[in-house]
Amino acid sequence: MTTQVAVVGATGRMGQQVIRIIDATDDLSLFAGLNSRSELSEMIGADVVIDLTVPAVSQSVVEFAIEHGIKVLVGTSGWSAERLAWLERRVAEHEGAGVIVVPNFSIGSVLATSFATMAARFYDSIEIIEAHHASKVDSPSGTAVRTAELIGRARSHQGPVIAPHADQRARGQQVASVPIHSLRMQGVVARQDVHFGALGELLTITHETLSPDSYERGILAALRATPGAVGVTVGLDALIDLSGNAAE
Amino acid sequence: MTTQVAVVGATGRMGQQVIRIIDATDDLSLFAGLNSRSELSEMIGADVVIDLTVPAVSQSVVEFAIEHGIKVLVGTSGWSAERLAWLERRVAEHEGAGVIVVPNFSIGSVLATSFATMAARFYDSIEIIEAHHASKVDSPSGTAVRTAELIGRARSHQGPVIAPHADQRARGQQVASVPIHSLRMQGVVARQDVHFGALGELLTITHETLSPDSYERGILAALRATPGAVGVTVGLDALIDLSGNAAE
Amino acid sequence: MTTQVAVVGATGRMGQQVIRIIDATDDLSLFAGLNSRSELSEMIGADVVIDLTVPAVSQSVVEFAIEHGIKVLVGTSGWSAERLAWLERRVAEHEGAGVIVVPNFSIGSVLATSFATMAARFYDSIEIIEAHHASKVDSPSGTAVRTAELIGRARSHQGPVIAPHADQRARGQQVASVPIHSLRMQGVVARQDVHFGALGELLTITHETLSPDSYERGILAALRATPGAVGVTVGLDALIDLSGNAAE
Amino acid sequence: MTTQVAVVGATGRMGQQVIRIIDATDDLSLFAGLNSRSELSEMIGADVVIDLTVPAVSQSVVEFAIEHGIKVLVGTSGWSAERLAWLERRVAEHEGAGVIVVPNFSIGSVLATSFATMAARFYDSIEIIEAHHASKVDSPSGTAVRTAELIGRARSHQGPVIAPHADQRARGQQVASVPIHSLRMQGVVARQDVHFGALGELLTITHETLSPDSYERGILAALRATPGAVGVTVGLDALIDLSGNAAE
Repeated sequence: MTTQVAVVGATGRMGQQVIRIIDATDDLSLFAGLNSRSELSEMIGADVVIDLTVPAVSQSVVEFAIEHGIKVLVGTSGWSAERLAWLERRVAEHEGAGVIVVPNFSIGSVLATSFATMAARFYDSIEIIEAHHASKVDSPSGTAVRTAELIGRARSHQGPVIAPHADQRARGQQVASVPIHSLRMQGVVARQDVHFGALGELLTITHETLSPDSYERGILAALRATPGAVGVTVGLDALIDLSGNAAE
Repeated sequence: MTTQVAVVGATGRMGQQVIRIIDATDDLSLFAGLNSRSELSEMIGADVVIDLTVPAVSQSVVEFAIEHGIKVLVGTSGWSAERLAWLERRVAEHEGAGVIVVPNFSIGSVLATSFATMAARFYDSIEIIEAHHASKVDSPSGTAVRTAELIGRARSHQGPVIAPHADQRARGQQVASVPIHSLRMQGVVARQDVHFGALGELLTITHETLSPDSYERGILAALRATPGAVGVTVGLDALIDLSGNAAE
Repeated sequence: MTTQVAVVGATGRMGQQVIRIIDATDDLSLFAGLNSRSELSEMIGADVVIDLTVPAVSQSVVEFAIEHGIKVLVGTSGWSAERLAWLERRVAEHEGAGVIVVPNFSIGSVLATSFATMAARFYDSIEIIEAHHASKVDSPSGTAVRTAELIGRARSHQGPVIAPHADQRARGQQVASVPIHSLRMQGVVARQDVHFGALGELLTITHETLSPDSYERGILAALRATPGAVGVTVGLDALIDLSGNAAE
Repeated sequence: MTTQVAVVGATGRMGQQVIRIIDATDDLSLFAGLNSRSELSEMIGADVVIDLTVPAVSQSVVEFAIEHGIKVLVGTSGWSAERLAWLERRVAEHEGAGVIVVPNFSIGSVLATSFATMAARFYDSIEIIEAHHASKVDSPSGTAVRTAELIGRARSHQGPVIAPHADQRARGQQVASVPIHSLRMQGVVARQDVHFGALGELLTITHETLSPDSYERGILAALRATPGAVGVTVGLDALIDLSGNAAE
């Protein structure tokens, strides 16, 4: 059986990538591609809508889909905790509604963050280095901030990491007590190292993204999971089973 | 309450390290230190015996302990599958007997291997680089072989990794289809990188051991788990909870 | 003054890249683009010809240019020692003739190889790891072989590197006594690490190529050096001054 | 012929290391070991004096040696530009006087800094990461600061490196325009990475120190160079020939 997918934000870079993935996949079919001049009603009849718009538009797309009984995959970043709380309430009001929110489609990045979170309790020294292209204007990266926050949360029993002299200028920016160091260089695409140190040993988890092609696997896994979604699911990690018990 | 520990192999490097750990830990107490001239009966009365001998001796130490109702922590490497099967039978014959077998006391190494195993299903390109001191005579290292075997097992649904031209001399040695590359260099202590590659992205998990001090945490965790052991438990990974639900 | 450049092999990937560079550079002008159906006489009148053909064709292009008093930049790889000896003789026969042969236009790769050669005398443990995409059919890479050979030559007083148990399968392929380890993985473009080890310390020189754009600087430097070339010059390293005395 | 060496600061860690090196080396002999209770006159008769005291004492040791015609190797760090200017004047007043000042005896570190300086002109993106043990109180490290300063000097024609948004907290501390990022972690001894980025490529030079044994080679090279020293020589780099023309 083929899943009919409506793509909102079809003309953007990610929209085009999603359409290529749908075209190349037997069990997926493009129902409609919507852009900024489309009517939302064009998605009616699809099994799944994938929202790749901007935060300001995303909420109305999701609301329309829920009301018309269409399952939703949100690939727009920037869904805050408050907005997710609103989403939970809206979904609860519609029986059978299902929304998956995926801020990061990189399976490798999700694995790296999961491993870093698991290791966090076992090391008192933890620092993050992230490197991106010179044109990236903000620092630290969103992934580094999220990784540091998850490390902080995983250490609720152990307390803050040991980051001596963190006030010194060269010691980076602390997030949830974890120092983050940001490099901005020509020639780099995107890379993150999480360093863990303990007496006599070091553990490092590194993830590098070299092209947006790397999101394909995550997009496909999320698209395939959406028809069966019930309630609100956040993050690609919720869709992949790290225990190794089930098939991918 | 203090756990009384008998150390068999007390005069070796690891025996001395274990005795230092016991001395520095309030809830552990040294009951007896046995060496090659000791009678096994000297361990009678201990709560726990830790065996740090050689494979040829280890089996008789464990048997004696089981028969005298003493819980056992085996820190001797080289317990084969056949020997572990024998151990299972012996333990089953003695109600309440408990043996923990830990071939590698490095928590960091155990974490790195666990993460590599979890990541194995998501990447078709996987290669291991391990570097040790120039004086190490064998290659690949035992840890690299074990990591490759666990990766192979985790990929039972995906099949062998894609390792093109693995017959070429520079392409390393394949274990469970995973190429392993061994460096033997002055200045290196012990390091292992597991590299994972997929379309447009790379994930790397690195563990470095700089001193035997790094085994302390694993020895302590295992010593504390032994009094409560029932049946046969193999590996430090069975003693640590990666889910993050429980305290360490 | 503008240098008039004839490009032989104009329709290939590198030919197109060179034409883009010429178009974007004020002091360079495209005199003619020759392909496999062009007459060599189309280059007559150019100041410089850049040869980007295949080894079988390259020699006749260079001969024609020398005879017509045109300076030559050879960007075709595969010029053997014998062929270079022939070139030396031909150039000597024509007063004022000048040919620059550049097998590798990557300035970063040339720097990395130069540094590795300089460090070679100071370390007895030296091993090379090179990683390329899974589609690369040969191993070790040409750059790794050349690096190892230069290391071997630089160690003429020190002798072979110390590479214990190099006969073991996981220990890589030795070139000039230096073990080379080749990884072939999805997600990798091209990377080389040269590892140096001595008592208590490690030095590593790493070069990564992420896109052919990285050749631009080397192509430009070579094109600008060609009008002034006299005799035969081999390698980009001969065109850049590492002493730091002169401007780039 | 054996060189008679007087060691000032003989009871310190480095003094003891130097005495072990002298004992193990045929062409060197320990003439005298001086400590804080010794008379400086005890060095009279030595061929060479190595000063391993503290900055406050070092100057008087050097002055005494110069006046008594003894060649000097200064291994005390903290000789400022002003103090070196004073030293130049004092040495000029004594015909045949020779002083070698070596702030860092690590040959690997000196090589890494030399390579970084040579590469500096070819990359507009340059950032330094240095990692040391959690007990190190200052940041950035002296070696990182010196490396950045040499990079800045080597780029006198190119100008400052391109380090966007260097005012952001995670972007490290700039020295001579080069961002330096300092990690302070358990399990780390000492490591420095200099990262160079350009269009489509990355070059990285890494040096790790794992034990003070790594200083042995530099100490020995400096001790052997001191009898022939004339005038003031600063830095181990002045004693080693990177051109590869001479034997080590």
